[in-house]
Amino acid sequence: MSPAAATSPRPCAIADALEVVGERWALLVIRELLWGNHRFADIAHNTGAPRDVLSARLRRLVDAGIIEKRRYREHPPRDGYHLTKAGFDLAPVLASLTQWSRRHIPAGEHRPNVAHHDHEIDPVVEVRCRICGERVA
Amino acid sequence: MSPAAATSPRPCAIADALEVVGERWALLVIRELLWGNHRFADIAHNTGAPRDVLSARLRRLVDAGIIEKRRYREHPPRDGYHLTKAGFDLAPVLASLTQWSRRHIPAGEHRPNVAHHDHEIDPVVEVRCRICGERVA
Repeated sequence: MSPAAATSPRPCAIADALEVVGERWALLVIRELLWGNHRFADIAHNTGAPRDVLSARLRRLVDAGIIEKRRYREHPPRDGYHLTKAGFDLAPVLASLTQWSRRHIPAGEHRPNVAHHDHEIDPVVEVRCRICGERVA
Repeated sequence: MSPAAATSPRPCAIADALEVVGERWALLVIRELLWGNHRFADIAHNTGAPRDVLSARLRRLVDAGIIEKRRYREHPPRDGYHLTKAGFDLAPVLASLTQWSRRHIPAGEHRPNVAHHDHEIDPVVEVRCRICGERVA
């Protein structure tokens, strides 16, 4: 029985996903990789994650098949981190968090984001039901 | 300066959102409220959250304006928890986590979800750019 099953009585796809990515630093790592930053030092700097926490999160994300290591230098050996297909598929999670944040967090100074053509992307997230095709409010 | 600003060097709408909801129990609380479970005991049972952790998360979500308390009994006084507009707007985050989980977590036995007409909803999340209208891969 997994830790998820032991602590979460309701079996649920959301709980399963949160076992892997339900944590601030994990999602910020994925943000950095989506934005093209692949080196440990850059990820540490841009997220603000403590280095030991970051190492643990990266290992866990590798184990979960969400990111993978690729060597970018041989002497001395250095690995960068890259999203797998499963990792790229988390982009809508980050897009929906961005949309929610822009709408509901009164930050005043919002916020660099992903470039899109000649502007920064302002994501709108729509949810449909695959079975009946209907848009879900 | 907020704790977010102190620990996250890159100002970012995603990081702002994760300050509030970047945590497994917070998102599972929101799941329960979306599914119509409003009482502390039910939320504790369905999420598996320890009661002290759950109390702290509920307080934080109330403070952040994502949920609100409503009295459902006077003697003895008992409050239920309900999503605000900001809370309901987190539904696409949970939908995108559900979609990702169904695609990438080999759970075998997937997973009760929200009823939709005569079937369980199978969410598909689409992201568009508000500025140019284009669908984002």
